[in-house]
This record gives sequence, C-alpha cells and structure tokens, in this order.
Amino acid sequence: MINIETKPISLSPELTIGGNESTLILGPCSVESYEQTRLVGKLIHKLGLKMIRGGAFKPRTSPDAFQGLGEEGLEILRAVADEFDLLVLSEALGVEQVPLLQKYADLIQIGSRNMQHFPLLWAVGEIEKPVMLKRGFMSTVEEWLAAAKHISSRGNEKIILCERGIRTFETLTRNTFDTNAIAFLKQNSPYPIFGDPSHATGRADLVIPAAQSALAAGADGLVVEVHPNPAEALSDGKQSLTLAQGEELFEQATRIATALGRKIG
Amino acid sequence: MINIETKPISLSPELTIGGNESTLILGPCSVESYEQTRLVGKLIHKLGLKMIRGGAFKPRTSPDAFQGLGEEGLEILRAVADEFDLLVLSEALGVEQVPLLQKYADLIQIGSRNMQHFPLLWAVGEIEKPVMLKRGFMSTVEEWLAAAKHISSRGNEKIILCERGIRTFETLTRNTFDTNAIAFLKQNSPYPIFGDPSHATGRADLVIPAAQSALAAGADGLVVEVHPNPAEALSDGKQSLTLAQGEELFEQATRIATALGRKIG
Amino acid sequence: MINIETKPISLSPELTIGGNESTLILGPCSVESYEQTRLVGKLIHKLGLKMIRGGAFKPRTSPDAFQGLGEEGLEILRAVADEFDLLVLSEALGVEQVPLLQKYADLIQIGSRNMQHFPLLWAVGEIEKPVMLKRGFMSTVEEWLAAAKHISSRGNEKIILCERGIRTFETLTRNTFDTNAIAFLKQNSPYPIFGDPSHATGRADLVIPAAQSALAAGADGLVVEVHPNPAEALSDGKQSLTLAQGEELFEQATRIATALGRKIG
Amino acid sequence: MINIETKPISLSPELTIGGNESTLILGPCSVESYEQTRLVGKLIHKLGLKMIRGGAFKPRTSPDAFQGLGEEGLEILRAVADEFDLLVLSEALGVEQVPLLQKYADLIQIGSRNMQHFPLLWAVGEIEKPVMLKRGFMSTVEEWLAAAKHISSRGNEKIILCERGIRTFETLTRNTFDTNAIAFLKQNSPYPIFGDPSHATGRADLVIPAAQSALAAGADGLVVEVHPNPAEALSDGKQSLTLAQGEELFEQATRIATALGRKIG
Repeated sequence: MINIETKPISLSPELTIGGNESTLILGPCSVESYEQTRLVGKLIHKLGLKMIRGGAFKPRTSPDAFQGLGEEGLEILRAVADEFDLLVLSEALGVEQVPLLQKYADLIQIGSRNMQHFPLLWAVGEIEKPVMLKRGFMSTVEEWLAAAKHISSRGNEKIILCERGIRTFETLTRNTFDTNAIAFLKQNSPYPIFGDPSHATGRADLVIPAAQSALAAGADGLVVEVHPNPAEALSDGKQSLTLAQGEELFEQATRIATALGRKIG
Repeated sequence: MINIETKPISLSPELTIGGNESTLILGPCSVESYEQTRLVGKLIHKLGLKMIRGGAFKPRTSPDAFQGLGEEGLEILRAVADEFDLLVLSEALGVEQVPLLQKYADLIQIGSRNMQHFPLLWAVGEIEKPVMLKRGFMSTVEEWLAAAKHISSRGNEKIILCERGIRTFETLTRNTFDTNAIAFLKQNSPYPIFGDPSHATGRADLVIPAAQSALAAGADGLVVEVHPNPAEALSDGKQSLTLAQGEELFEQATRIATALGRKIG
Repeated sequence: MINIETKPISLSPELTIGGNESTLILGPCSVESYEQTRLVGKLIHKLGLKMIRGGAFKPRTSPDAFQGLGEEGLEILRAVADEFDLLVLSEALGVEQVPLLQKYADLIQIGSRNMQHFPLLWAVGEIEKPVMLKRGFMSTVEEWLAAAKHISSRGNEKIILCERGIRTFETLTRNTFDTNAIAFLKQNSPYPIFGDPSHATGRADLVIPAAQSALAAGADGLVVEVHPNPAEALSDGKQSLTLAQGEELFEQATRIATALGRKIG
Repeated sequence: MINIETKPISLSPELTIGGNESTLILGPCSVESYEQTRLVGKLIHKLGLKMIRGGAFKPRTSPDAFQGLGEEGLEILRAVADEFDLLVLSEALGVEQVPLLQKYADLIQIGSRNMQHFPLLWAVGEIEKPVMLKRGFMSTVEEWLAAAKHISSRGNEKIILCERGIRTFETLTRNTFDTNAIAFLKQNSPYPIFGDPSHATGRADLVIPAAQSALAAGADGLVVEVHPNPAEALSDGKQSLTLAQGEELFEQATRIATALGRKIG
C-alpha cells in the first residue's frame, strides 16, 4: 500500500534519518544552563544516541514568560554536543536567525507557529542544512505538504516532517496526537516523518505510550523533551521526562522498533 | 504511572477482555448476507480469534442509504458464530432493541452517535450482558466516562470503552484517532479500552498502521471491519479490509502485542 | 442571492413562524416549580409574546445532576401556558416520550445530542405537530439537513431548525455560535431557522449581543433561557437571563428586527 | 455588563476608530493593477468612506499561486488613496517589511498566520502607527489578547483587533465566524474590535448577512473584500463582493448601525 518511498537523509556518517533506524532525539525544551544541558547530553551519549535538541529562543504566548537564553543557549548546546560527539537540533524563530542557526545547529527546526511563515520557509529553502518542519497545530496535512513545497521550491530538499499534535475540542491533553497523519505520510511522502509526543500530550505520564504509538504508526523518529529536574524547568516542565524516564523511553521504543524490524539510533 | 488497574471482563471460558490478551474483533460493517458473513467467520476461526462483529441496524446520515437487515441480520450473525464457536458483538440502536440484542449478542455495542442517548445507557445499565461503549465522535474523554457512569450507576459494571476517532478540522482521514485518549484511559480507568481503526481512519490503507498505534498506546483490543469484497460492500466499503488484509492485520498486531508482552486472542 | 424561500409554519391564528415576524421564545432551562414557571409566563404575556419553553426531562452529562420533573414538569408548563394563552415548546428525549409531548406541547424539540438519534427522528416524522430540530453541536450543516430529511421522509414537513452553537477549540464560550450557518440556511433551506444564544454562549453577559447577531444573520426566531433567579437555577443558571434582562433582550431584538423590516412576535 | 470601555483610536481628523462610528474598510484582496484599485477607490469615495485596504505581499498556501505585486502594489494603493483622499490599510508579512509599510500605509495589518510570529509583533510594537491584529484562525481569544500584549509591551498601544473566522469541523464555509468573540471583546478589551466577513465565510453570498451579524454583535468596524470583477480576481475571488454588492453592503450596514445608535463611516 506504500505509494511513495521515504528518501533517507544523511546528517553524518553515523546518522541517517529515514532509513533502517528510528532516530530518538532528546533534550530540554529550553537550554537553561550548561549544567542542565550537560546532564541530558551525558544521558544521550550513554544511550548511544546521536543528536541533542534544545531551544535558545523561546518566545511564549505571554510576553512575561521566560524567553530563552538566545545565542548563549546555542553556544551551550554546541559545547555539550561537541563534548559528547552529538549533532544539534534547534529552532530558528525568524529569517534573521537563520545565519546563527547555521553556525550552531546541524538540523534547523521550523516551529509549529511558523509553519506558514513564508519568508522563513523561503530562507531555509536556500540553505544546505536539513530542516525539520513541525506541523502547524491547526494545519491540515495538505497545508503542511504545501509548506514543505515552499522550502523545496527554493532548492532545499532535505526536509524532515514532525507531527506534534493538533488543536481539537479535547482538553485532557494539550493537543491531540494525529497518529493517522504519521501513517499517511509514511506511505505518501518522500520526507522522513517524526513524532513529538511531548507537545502532542503535554503530560509526562502519557509521553511513553504516545511515543510507542507514533513508532507503531510508522514514525522514522521521535523528538522528546527530557530535563534533569522537570519540576523546576523554566518552560514545559509538565511534559518533560526525567533522565530515568528518558532511559525507560529508550527501552520501550527499542522494543517497538524491533517488532517493526528497525533499530533505535 | 498507572493510577487505576484495568479490571478484566470474562465473556466465556476462552475469552477474557482486558487481561493478558489483546482481543481482535473482526467482522463486516453490516451483515449483508449469510455467505458474506460466513466467509468472515471462517477467517476469524482460522486465526484462532473468538468474536465476530456485524451491524444489523444501520441507520445512516442519509435516509436513502441501506439501513441494515434488522433481525434477519442478527440471525445470520448468530448462526455463523455458532458454526465457528464464536461470540457476537452487535449494536443496539435504541431502547426498544435491547431485548433483541440480549437474545442474539454476547457483547452489546452503544454506537458513537448514541453515547449520550441517556435512556439507552440506562437500559443497558439494567442488564447482565457486557456493553461496549463507543466514544461519541464529538465527546470529550470526561463526557465519555460520565456516560459510562450513567450505565454503571444502574448496576452494570461490565463496560468496555472503544475509541473510534474524533471529529477535527483534518479531512484527510474520516476522523482523527485519539491515541492519547487510549493511553490516558489505560492508566486512569478500570474499563478495558479498545480502538477502532476502521472508523478512526475511514481508509483501508491506513487501518493496519492505525491498529498498530492503538495497541502500542495500550489498547486492550481492536474492532476492525473486514469484508470479503469491500468494493461491493453496502456500507463503509472504503474502510474495510479484505480477508487477506485481515490476516496481515493479525500478523502485525501479533508482533506489536508480543513486543508489549501480550498475546492477540 | 436567495435560492430557496422559507416556508412559513402556522402554529396558531396568532403565531406563524418563518414569516414577517421573528419569534422570540423564552422560558427556563428546566421547569423547576409552578411559581418559577408562572413568573416567566407572566413576563412573556406582558411582552406580547406567544410561546413558552421549558424542559421536563433533563438527563445531564453527569448522572448525579438534577434530571428534571418529568411529566409533572409538562403539567406545570401547560397550566402556565393556558393561564397566559401561550403555546408550549418542550423536548422529547426518546421515542417513548413522543406521546407525552404530543399531549402537552405545541412544538416538540429534538435536542442537540439527539440530532442523529434516528428512531426518534422517524417517530416525530410520523406525527402532525411541528418539530424543532436543534443542530448537533458537532454536526455539519449537511448532516443537519440530512437529519431533517429523516423526519420529512416520514411525512412531517413542519420542521424548524435551531442553531445552538458548535464545539470548537475555543473555550471562552460554551460553544461557538455559527451565525454563518444561520445566514446559509436562511438562503438555502425551506425551513425556518432559529438561533439559541443561551447554549451558544453559555454566559448571560453575551446572550443579548449574540441574540442580536443571530437576528442580523437572518434568524426567523430565537430561543432564550430566562429564569426568575438564575443564581439558584437547578440547571444552566450561568447562561440564563433574569426577567429584567429578558425585557431588555426584547427591546434590543425589536430594534434589530425593525431595521431588517420585521417585527418581534 | 460592560467591564472595559473601548478606547477610540484617531487616525486622521476625519477618522476615529472605536467611537460613535462603525468603520467600513473596503478593498481588493490583492492589488492587481492601477485600474482595478482605482475603481474600488472611486466607490469608497462615493460612499463617503475613508480607508482602502489591499494586499501587496500575498504568500499563499501553495508556492505556485500569485504572490502579490510587492512594493509596486503599495505604490498603486497609495496613489489611489491620495487621489480620493483615503487612508491605507495593508499587511506587513515579516519584520523586514515594516519600514516599507510605514512608508505607504496608515494602518498596518498583522495577518492571521502571523498572529504569533513574535519578532513581527515586537517590531510593530516599536513604531507609532496603529496596528490591526487579525486573529489567528487557530488561536483562542486568550492567545489573541496575549499577542496584543506582545505589541503593547513594546510601547505601541494603538491596536485594533479583527476577528476573521476560526477553523472548525464545518466545511460549508471557509471558516466559522466567531461572533461570540466579537461580543466578548467589545465588553472586555480596550481595543476596537472589527470583523472580516469575507475570510470568515469565504463565500460572497454570505458576506452581507455575516457583516450584519458582526455589527449586531458589537463590532466597531468591518474589513470587506470588494473587486470590480471577482470572477477574474487573482486571489480570493469567491469571497469578493462586486462594486454593486459593496454598495448594498453599505446600505445594509447602515441600517443595522442606525438601529444600534451608530453611524457607518
């Protein structure tokens, strides 16, 4: 029933996304300090994973909330990544930040609220680095693929899609995880498709089963928030896994991936 | 992270729902004929499964569409079930049909559109047979649990919940499969929780990955539409699996269940 | 731009719905007592209006909440209506209540949760009395018109539609009032179209402007909850107008109706 | 029931928004040519209105569609406005366009897809010119007010809100016009609140009743798409009024405004 094969994207000799391995990307919502980030980097290294994520620019719904460390956050992320031989995923919030992200990150994220910010799509369409395009939380799959086309039409075909939940009437969870969309895109798009169970649920107690469901629907990878001390996180603490839960996630994800004939990398 | 353990419900010496086995219930959307139903019953028997599903009363959005065979449909379903030593799942559409369903079925379904039809909830609350309460496609999890309480408050505690997709802005799939709700209910409700990937996707090409995602989120079972010839089905043909796809579903579900330490029964 | 003219429905020599007058139907959510109902009836009479509404059967999301007075409620409603020479609007919750409603009411309501309860649609399709079909709060206009067809196909063409808000992601108001649907149906359906600003907003402070917007979109009438003492109402108190606010509503509605060349009756 | 009074914003000696007059702003979706724009400007002048709207940058869901004339479009808009003594409303798509808009426009629009593009909110927060902040079609009223705070916290308090419809499950209309939100904001925010019935309906045949409903809910003004020849419009033709319909809109809006004790200006 597969109509379009996924085209793998190679990020390094050790990391190819969209191939035999399902990629697990862990990290804090926001980079808050070197110590915090290093603890997560150490876990990632221990698990044999290859990429760390973290936000440096975190404009929030309310202008009064913590807005991120800015370039200092990127420096911390890079330093930790280099220590543990990891790649870096981080978000560019606007056109003006693309050069900075090119300097520090290996995979540049376009966030959910920017999925249809066209000048930014065009800007990352003109660079070489791969782009992770998160789904707008109230965008259809069709609009999401059209946004990807805004990128690819400028030349950059290295696009990874990431489903992170959509807004619905249900308020028990932060969003509704559209695992149907993962299943559909796995069969009908050339781009690797990821799932983000942290934003999709907004609750740490549901992140592991949601991660499992994304992999079982066909996800090529997961992006999951992990924090050494979620209770004191400056953003998204309610949905962050502890380091121990991060390990448990790795084990459970490995079981599901194995059942599907893949590995977690 | 589990707050409430699932209470298993025994339907026969061979079939306990909500225990170590994940239950796979197959069958046509509507019972159309003895031959059609028997072919599905034969497959179920071959796979070692224990229950068949089928609709006898099928009022549809449009009054011009096929409305089901009525009691004749229940007779066919029972005859096929008896031949292959299966149990029967079928829907009661209104209070007035409860006696009929008690006569022919082993598990009585309350459909999505009736989740808040309170007189029917009260009626099945006063019988002995177990009830499968499908989620209203417009209902929150909180309302769903309140509907279950309308049943249990009349005495019947043998309730099985079934997530079948909710209505959202996304139109690529018939509904959005709320696998988060499955994960939540597995941890926070005593009732076994099922998934219905047929209605949740509305597309046969997505049923198997959606079924996998439901099991991986924690589902205690699946209800899936299978038809000997979906192209000629009188209802829901687009989302029905063929007999061969039904076998493939069984194999894939078994892999996922095994990874989770369960069996498919 | 009108494609289909509204067909007026005559309920009495004094009341024709869907004609030159916009009909204002007031009353409590639930009939709680004779005194409560009589106070509202007196206001309706004073304003020169012709119909009272009230619920006798009020099954609620939670089985622990007040469930209505049952037949006693209908008796009270009828007694008050007769005293003030009013017609009665009340809801039939299931097929089994249709005879009772035929005895006490002049206009029988099918509630939002029952919009697709087909046996009930068929039952009211076979009687003579007019029916008010409320929109399912998560049903499309197309499904709503199909539900109306389930009624009319059994013979009863005296159908009045009532938009009462739909479920969306917005939680500031109980529902989102789909005034677009009112505008569409006014131009494209033969059935008079009403608005229910009480359920559509869920907040007394927004009921009057919402009522105005419904009339301005083309509504042939309004159904509005009024209670002598909303703070002590047994159901829906937050959205009920006081008697004084009911008068203010009448005045504001009259201004808008006049601007549109209609009267409030 | 009013909790917060609207603070009027003066744009010129002739035009104050949020006061006794409801402001009607007409214009084409995209500026396509001088001739097209001049015909609309002439109508606006004839009706005694004071502002023209038009888009110069029109990135679209699909990268293959017409993307606007860019600065040339702004020049045309300004030239037509100057000829007819009108003010100009146009959209800034990104931070980099703010200087250009400051040069050509009197009121700068932030579009629905950019409601949470924070760098742009901050940029217009630091200028003198008033800003029209359209509601994100996926955003709650609470998030919308938080976005306004991102602007005002940088110093610019001259903010006008514009409800333009939200995404729901209903597909009959392009969006669902949240007239409840208009009613709420009129009572609970200091910012003038507008309605955009063109985007909210997506259908020319519903624009006039939807405009009426917005005014009746309390809107301080309307933004409506008008095109000399909608059938040949390069964008949004289906929802554009003809010049004759623009006149009819003016007449109907005047009736409703008069009933509410306001004028159309």
